[in-house]
This record gives sequence, C-alpha cells and structure tokens, in this order.
Amino acid sequence: MPLTAALRSLAAPLRPRKGDTTRASIVEAALALARRDGLEGLTIGVLAHETQMSKSGVFAHFGSREELQRAVLADYAQRFVDDVLRPAVRAPRGLPRLRTILDRWVAWLAREVEQGCLMMAGAAEYDDRPGPLREALVALVTGWKAELLEAIAQAVEAGHLRRETDAEQLVFEIYGLMLALHQDARLLRSAHSVARTRVGLTRLLADVSAPARRKPAVRKAAPRAARQPH
Amino acid sequence: MPLTAALRSLAAPLRPRKGDTTRASIVEAALALARRDGLEGLTIGVLAHETQMSKSGVFAHFGSREELQRAVLADYAQRFVDDVLRPAVRAPRGLPRLRTILDRWVAWLAREVEQGCLMMAGAAEYDDRPGPLREALVALVTGWKAELLEAIAQAVEAGHLRRETDAEQLVFEIYGLMLALHQDARLLRSAHSVARTRVGLTRLLADVSAPARRKPAVRKAAPRAARQPH
Repeated sequence: MPLTAALRSLAAPLRPRKGDTTRASIVEAALALARRDGLEGLTIGVLAHETQMSKSGVFAHFGSREELQRAVLADYAQRFVDDVLRPAVRAPRGLPRLRTILDRWVAWLAREVEQGCLMMAGAAEYDDRPGPLREALVALVTGWKAELLEAIAQAVEAGHLRRETDAEQLVFEIYGLMLALHQDARLLRSAHSVARTRVGLTRLLADVSAPARRKPAVRKAAPRAARQPH
Repeated sequence: MPLTAALRSLAAPLRPRKGDTTRASIVEAALALARRDGLEGLTIGVLAHETQMSKSGVFAHFGSREELQRAVLADYAQRFVDDVLRPAVRAPRGLPRLRTILDRWVAWLAREVEQGCLMMAGAAEYDDRPGPLREALVALVTGWKAELLEAIAQAVEAGHLRRETDAEQLVFEIYGLMLALHQDARLLRSAHSVARTRVGLTRLLADVSAPARRKPAVRKAAPRAARQPH
C-alpha cells in the first residue's frame, strides 16, 4: 500500500470532525510537543497545559491520547508527502523523478535535524511497543518504501536503470543512507552527513544506471547493439 | 579516541568498586531492564523491585541513577568489544580483518534483533537529551567509528583497498547499512535485512577494493608491474 493510501487509512477515523479549526491548532501544538519529547511523551495533560485548554476541552476533540498521537503522526506524514513526494511528480518519470524524490528527502531531513524526523525517531521509539502507533508507523514506512519502489520501477521501464536492478535492495540501501544522515547529524552533530548521503546516493544510482547513460565516453566507439541495456 | 579507550574512560569512575559480585549482578539485571525499556526507562526503583533489593541497597553500589545507566552502557559496550572487535584481531591485518569485523557486527545485530542494540537504540533515545549519557553514547559511537577507520587504513596500507578510498565515507555508508538492518528487522520484522546488509557490504568493499584483487582474471595477462596497487 503506497504512502498516500496508508495516510488516508491513518487519517480516516478522524475525518468526521474536519472543518474544526480548534482541532487543527491542537494538532499543531501537539506536533511541536511530539517533536520535542517524542510521540510517547505526548499526553493530553501536557498538551492541555501548553495550549491553556482544559483536559476535557482537548478530550472533546480527541477521544483518547492514542487518537491524538495518530492525528499528529498523520499530520506529520501529510507534510512529508506535500513537501517530498508531491512536487517530485512534476519531474519526468524515471531517473529524474527518482532523483527529485531523493533530493527532496535529503533536504527534508537536513531541515529536520534540530528536532528529528518524527517518522525516523518514531520508528526507534515504537519498534518494540506493540499497538496501534507501531502499526501506523509500519504502514507509513512500508508505504513510503512502496512509493520508492514504484519510482524505481518506472526508471527501469524508462530504460534509465538496468533491468536486473534489485529494487528492494536499492530501497534498503537508500534508507540506510538516510538513517545514517539522521544519526550522524543529530547524535554526532556532524557537518558532513548531508554531503556524505548525497555521495552515497549518487554512487548507488550510478551502480544501477543503464550502461548507455553511465559510461557514454567509454562506449562511444562501440557498436550500437552493445550499448543496449542487457 | 578508539572504542577501547572510550570504554576505559566510561568505566573509569566505577573501577574502585570492582570485585563486588553483587554489583555485577545488579548491572546484569539493569542491563536486561534497559534492553526492555531503554536506558531512560531504567530507574533505581524498578531495578530494586526486580532484584528484590532495597533502594538503599542499590544506592550503596551506584551513587545515582546516572552512574547506574553509565555502568550498564559500559557493560554492554564491553560485551560488544569482546564479541565483535577482539576476535577480529586474530584475522590477518587488512581486508580479512575488516571483513571479520563487519561479519561479526552483522551477526551481533542479527542476534540483538529481539531486544535491540542498546547503542543504536540509545543513539535515537539520547540524540536530543543533553547530558552525560548522551556524551557517553557519542564517545562510544565515535570510538567505534575510529576502530573501523583504523581497520580501513590498514587495508589500504596492505594494498587491499584503493589508496584513494574515502575512509570516512565508507564508514558512513557501512553504518547506514547497519542502521537499516536494525530498523528493518525490528520495526518491519523483515526476514531479509541481514541478507540485504551483507549484499550492501560486499558491494561497498568491492567498489573500493584495489583492482589487482578485484579483477584478477582481467589482469592475469598483464605484466607484474601493472598489478601493483596504485
């Protein structure tokens, strides 16, 4: 299930109350709190205190702490989709679109360094806490991987990437670079993590790029048939 | 500062009390708790309850919760050194030793999947919590990276890896694969994460391997001088 579908299902139980601007401002305050203390640090008590509302006032909008946490996660993921995925669709299918997605993802993480990406931090927070929040995070991460797999499949179809590209392996390694960026920038305060991630991504894509694109100079003199992707 | 030195400095304030078997068994119980609830979930109260000791009994061995947390982290890191780093020193210097380190690290993470690696989980837990625990984790991660850098430098010296190898970049990408293993195995319960990590590591090392080793078949007929690492 791609990310946009995962997001629809995550936000679904909350739909009937839309149009409520108080609710939106509560979610915004809750998001700020969750980014500071983690999703698990988000309680209706603390939130009520921060928004100067009564606890029952917050409860009127969210039936439970868990519904509030889900709303925050859905809101954050929606921002991610709007910022990273949606603009990339305007780039031509294939390698240009895949590169745009990865560029925007790196830029997103670089901006999130101070407070941490809620999806990456949440993955570490909930990996051993069974329950609906963990399930929501699994759906979001799996959904995001499905979007990447689709972009890779399109790049193979367009002849930009080799036919034998192991798309799952490529997504696994791309994710690794993004996790390394997140950890190095946040824990080690490394100034080089963004540059290192970009170097890694460039090499990863070069390794799976179709030969005609990857080494035009070397193959220049070869007969046309030899340049076809095999 | 390499990992072993980081470890000495982390364990240093605790040395005077060594020889205390009660203390060792408290650390062991505390480690089990920290692996379940995270280092931040470790309190003297919960620990006293689990070990059926009085709180003041635990305090007699650890002056503070923070000293207890540091002792647990030092104990865990010592196990990592004993299991991953120490046996690798018996492998020949260069690529064989580097490969052994990486193989043992993957095996360690694969075994830790159920409860999570305390250093990786701790990195996410403390990346935005300033204090001595965060500093201890930074020292351990930086120390471990220094060990990897040294193993890579030896492999370059031995002519196994290319002279122009960007060792910091290589360590960054190796770390990314290990983080991806940890997240995929724990959050997504992926059965393939260990295999994917190994594929990624093999490709990473092949990319920086010196030509004479990487493609012996191609160079077979070349004069001896051409086979020297450049």
